[in-house]
Amino acid sequence: MTTSFRVPKRLLVGNPMRSAQLGETLLPKRLALPVYCSDAISSNAYATQEILLVLALGGASMVLLTPWIALAVVTLLALVTLSYRQTCYAYPDGGGAYAVSRANLGRHASLVAAAALMVDYVMTVAVSIASGVENFVSAFPGLAPYSVELCIGFILVLTVMNLRGVRESGTAFAIPTYGFIISVYVMLGAGFWNALNGHTPVAESANLGFTNVSPAGAALIILILRAFASGCTSLTGVEAVSNGVPTFRKPKTRNASITLLLMGAMSIVMMGGIAVLSTMTNLHIADSMDELTNVPAGYEQRTVLAQLSAAVFGNNSLGFFAVQGFTTLILALAANTAFNGFPILASILAEDKYMPKQLGRRGDRLVFSNGIIILGSVAAGLIIAFNGSVTRLIQLYILGVFVSFTLSQTGMVVYWCRHARENGWTPKLIGSMLVNGVGALATAVVLGIVLLTKFTHGAYLVVIAIPVLFFVMLRIHRHYQRVSRQLMPKAAGITLPSRIHAVVLISQLNEPSLKALAFARAIRPSTITALRVDTNPVRTAKLVQEWSARDISVPLTIVTSAYRDLTEPVLDYLAKIHVGPRDVVQVFIPEYVVGHWWEQLLHNQSALRLKTRLLYMPGVMVTSVPYQLRSAEPYVLERPGADADVAVPPRSAVRPSAEAEPVPVPAVPPTLPGAPEPAAGDRPTRPGALIGR
Amino acid sequence: MTTSFRVPKRLLVGNPMRSAQLGETLLPKRLALPVYCSDAISSNAYATQEILLVLALGGASMVLLTPWIALAVVTLLALVTLSYRQTCYAYPDGGGAYAVSRANLGRHASLVAAAALMVDYVMTVAVSIASGVENFVSAFPGLAPYSVELCIGFILVLTVMNLRGVRESGTAFAIPTYGFIISVYVMLGAGFWNALNGHTPVAESANLGFTNVSPAGAALIILILRAFASGCTSLTGVEAVSNGVPTFRKPKTRNASITLLLMGAMSIVMMGGIAVLSTMTNLHIADSMDELTNVPAGYEQRTVLAQLSAAVFGNNSLGFFAVQGFTTLILALAANTAFNGFPILASILAEDKYMPKQLGRRGDRLVFSNGIIILGSVAAGLIIAFNGSVTRLIQLYILGVFVSFTLSQTGMVVYWCRHARENGWTPKLIGSMLVNGVGALATAVVLGIVLLTKFTHGAYLVVIAIPVLFFVMLRIHRHYQRVSRQLMPKAAGITLPSRIHAVVLISQLNEPSLKALAFARAIRPSTITALRVDTNPVRTAKLVQEWSARDISVPLTIVTSAYRDLTEPVLDYLAKIHVGPRDVVQVFIPEYVVGHWWEQLLHNQSALRLKTRLLYMPGVMVTSVPYQLRSAEPYVLERPGADADVAVPPRSAVRPSAEAEPVPVPAVPPTLPGAPEPAAGDRPTRPGALIGR
Repeated sequence: MTTSFRVPKRLLVGNPMRSAQLGETLLPKRLALPVYCSDAISSNAYATQEILLVLALGGASMVLLTPWIALAVVTLLALVTLSYRQTCYAYPDGGGAYAVSRANLGRHASLVAAAALMVDYVMTVAVSIASGVENFVSAFPGLAPYSVELCIGFILVLTVMNLRGVRESGTAFAIPTYGFIISVYVMLGAGFWNALNGHTPVAESANLGFTNVSPAGAALIILILRAFASGCTSLTGVEAVSNGVPTFRKPKTRNASITLLLMGAMSIVMMGGIAVLSTMTNLHIADSMDELTNVPAGYEQRTVLAQLSAAVFGNNSLGFFAVQGFTTLILALAANTAFNGFPILASILAEDKYMPKQLGRRGDRLVFSNGIIILGSVAAGLIIAFNGSVTRLIQLYILGVFVSFTLSQTGMVVYWCRHARENGWTPKLIGSMLVNGVGALATAVVLGIVLLTKFTHGAYLVVIAIPVLFFVMLRIHRHYQRVSRQLMPKAAGITLPSRIHAVVLISQLNEPSLKALAFARAIRPSTITALRVDTNPVRTAKLVQEWSARDISVPLTIVTSAYRDLTEPVLDYLAKIHVGPRDVVQVFIPEYVVGHWWEQLLHNQSALRLKTRLLYMPGVMVTSVPYQLRSAEPYVLERPGADADVAVPPRSAVRPSAEAEPVPVPAVPPTLPGAPEPAAGDRPTRPGALIGR
Repeated sequence: MTTSFRVPKRLLVGNPMRSAQLGETLLPKRLALPVYCSDAISSNAYATQEILLVLALGGASMVLLTPWIALAVVTLLALVTLSYRQTCYAYPDGGGAYAVSRANLGRHASLVAAAALMVDYVMTVAVSIASGVENFVSAFPGLAPYSVELCIGFILVLTVMNLRGVRESGTAFAIPTYGFIISVYVMLGAGFWNALNGHTPVAESANLGFTNVSPAGAALIILILRAFASGCTSLTGVEAVSNGVPTFRKPKTRNASITLLLMGAMSIVMMGGIAVLSTMTNLHIADSMDELTNVPAGYEQRTVLAQLSAAVFGNNSLGFFAVQGFTTLILALAANTAFNGFPILASILAEDKYMPKQLGRRGDRLVFSNGIIILGSVAAGLIIAFNGSVTRLIQLYILGVFVSFTLSQTGMVVYWCRHARENGWTPKLIGSMLVNGVGALATAVVLGIVLLTKFTHGAYLVVIAIPVLFFVMLRIHRHYQRVSRQLMPKAAGITLPSRIHAVVLISQLNEPSLKALAFARAIRPSTITALRVDTNPVRTAKLVQEWSARDISVPLTIVTSAYRDLTEPVLDYLAKIHVGPRDVVQVFIPEYVVGHWWEQLLHNQSALRLKTRLLYMPGVMVTSVPYQLRSAEPYVLERPGADADVAVPPRSAVRPSAEAEPVPVPAVPPTLPGAPEPAAGDRPTRPGALIGR
């Protein structure tokens, strides 16, 4: 990495953090709540609205059902919260759906859960950001045309924040989350207080009417189920706390469980309050303007929260801006739950060899940087593909959530059964199993409803994505296992090569070529030749002449290239000279390196291409002999003394000391006394030996 | 390149061609005319229209000036054609503006000409394609919304055709070019014949009126000059023949000169005919519908050629579709002039070290593939940026053309003067000089007019682009010169390294690591150590234990990485152990290679990053020891016997034989008898030596 690239990276993500700093990133409850519960709490900003939008398809009489559907949703929410509370206790190391189904339902179920969770995390970012921006432009209608750009901007900010590390985001998240909770509660309280005193607030859309009429029979049932399924978005994010148990301060499980219950209670009150208040204020909202009648000219439909806060506090009042501002912030930041969860899940999957191992490595700032970047990119892609529409994105959201809910809670039921088999049934255990059993059953039913009512509205994409992810993960696993079997060291060891044939690639007679020739002779190979690929007879003739004139004591071999390509003739030549299985060909490639990236563009990349191809030839090793041009600054030590160097002599099981104190490094690495080779004395040092003249 | 990539490439561009096939690509006159003159001839499809569009800004009375402005343009065209005819004779190796100004006006003028030409070539593609599509959608109005997509499609087709090679495109171009010439001449002839017989054709826009009124004073003059400048697009492409002299069949100069004169004559007749006929048919055309009155509902404005052919042959008649079809084809194909010219110019500049040298290499099919791809991409980018508007693109076109015209002809004047100084003045020489002098003067005046009247309409972009290209080329030249000075072999030669220290990077004890250790020991270094970067203490402990258990006779050195990074600790370690200037460190990197590109994604790229950084350390050579996994097929010979291998013994000036007959390669490359080293006998072959067990 050149300096020109390193400086902006450091400005953006901060200085690298030592591995030993990992312990510092534990969260107290007051910070864990905003970090892990912003998703679940913030989903109330759109859950009621999604119920209303579906019911509007059935006209005015159906919309009156809103509080009842909200009641069904909060009942389910209470069940799921209680169910997950038990997961916190049972899995103090993080009881994500993946871990729980892995332990109880086996490998395949756990991979389905993992695939569903990955889809969820992506959708959490996309939906939260889209809804946050929708609320933001409800307060500033002039920005409405730039919704998609605003979404991308928010995602970028989140990505960078998360690349900097968890702890900082915890602090940054506290104010918006608590601000949202307080401002919405104040709004609900003020609204109901006014209503009790006879001054019921009136929504700006109260005078509108609906064009649709109430359906009958099966269509009625389906509409109610669809509205319920849409309202279930309120449940998204409940699992975040149980995933995050290990990052809580001690006592971890107790703190996590309290946080979870707090979150459930706050969410239930909020969901119910918003549903009742929007019915009282006679709020009208619809997916398309065609569904509304009596619309005044220039009417711009705003979000449910914007209409409620305008009705309670007055439009463009301080209270209105507080609610809209905090809603935007908590939604934008709710996406952070996913930025916490996705990279950790991906790293666990990488550790288990179901995902590329690059996802399992912590970056400079102790976070799983690759996972963060992938999450941000995919979510941004979805926002662009769906043009930032919350309603369209939400169709993709709920399905994955309920797949992982159902699997996770079914896993818990199995967990309790196994527990009981080992220790016998106790009333407490039966109670625990019942709670999880009812939770699993309820979420499975909802999963069925979601699948039926949402399939054609976009959920089919998730029905495709989850199996695809599932098979990709299986395939990755098979690959890693096959590789690791092949890499396993055999008991027989490896035979030392008997002869080394050096081949030095030469294009012109210049300093880098002479250096490569000198280095090649220094290893004292059994045979040595210089190899020139003839693409231009005039230059080849010049090379031959210079070769003779300089009297170079290495033979020059010329192969012609009919197709002006360098790689194939070299490979053909090597394929011919490589004879015995115990022989090794060492190819020396002179390379000159320049300092600036733009200078790189001015030189052929043929060496890189050739080196890549040579890696596929058995019995060949490839040696680059670099020649640094003046613009290429040599490597300079940056953190002298930062590393501990410990030499381990063979035939002893000395463990390396883990502390970071610098240990002086000997000028020459230690050689083993008594080892038959290498021995420096074997080689006569010939100080005056020259190559070329 | 893996097979999965090679197969589609071969289908697209064909099999590779041998260098010896280069001579076959010479063009007879009947094919040279379409290849080199399609640009100049096809520009008549839009030149008159551009005059009309400008004059429409001055209303009906100004539009009547069209034939007079066309007369001025064709006079200039005749002058420039005669002027370039002399260039063909003076520079039989290709008298492009770059070569002529290089030879006569010096380096800086030639680089300005080169920059102007590169801009031209790009604009030729963009304008011709945009105008071709404009004519196409005049015939098929339903496709109008897809204009930009159609443009990109045409550019793609051209790029692929040109990647396949010149000769094939020559044949493909003959029919559209001759078809265009014939169909337009038939249209003009029929139109004038009918007019002579009293049935003057009437354009579909004859009943429209202009809203603008004639300007007065300076504004009038400026409008006339603007119209003239726009009409000068008719001259674009005249220089193509003189650039292409070397690709004509013998006698090259005579054939080129005849082709040029033919083209000039045909173009003059066509330009004049179209201008007169559009005045006779009372054609109305304007840049914006606001400038027209009396517009019927649903009126869609079509190109001048479409309106004329509809008026003469009847709308949607066979003649109408013939003219529109051939116009589209010749314009789409006129872009091919640039696809012939740009890559050759770029390769000449690369040869002279003003452009990256990758542009100077012929690809598989003997064409300069990189130049073709760059040209296609930039032109497509411009089409997208300017939304495919011919009128907006044309503002960028003419300036560059006249810069190169002026420089090229000024260069010719200097050429004749120098000729005269050497051989004395003759009347013929004075005549030649006068022709070029008048040409240079006229184009310089037009250049001034274009600069004044077009600057604010978009030409300022070219005024920026040409100096930028100029300075980039100077900078590239300086870089190559500095590098070549540094690479020059010094008289002193290079000292042989006295000691080699081997460092084998080890991450785990597996087969690739054991292979690397074996190979490292095989070169018998002065010292050897295995180096492990500790990022995970558990795995490091496991390695140490396995190391002892296997009793490996190479010491293991462990460096800790505080920041979980592999590269920096290795570099730090090497920086410390590297002591004397005569010592060399050889770093052995075990690498396992997989077969499929998607498998590559599953493995860390840290080896590649490390290798790149190591290239910047003085006194280090980097050796990759590859280990092929089963999915990685080893290299298989593809064209056995295709290459001639010639061994050149030192101390003799044997020239390599240039013919392509295969020469059997000895199983072991020839070593020099009597050379002090390398000698295989120095090394005891130890068949049973093992590393590990």
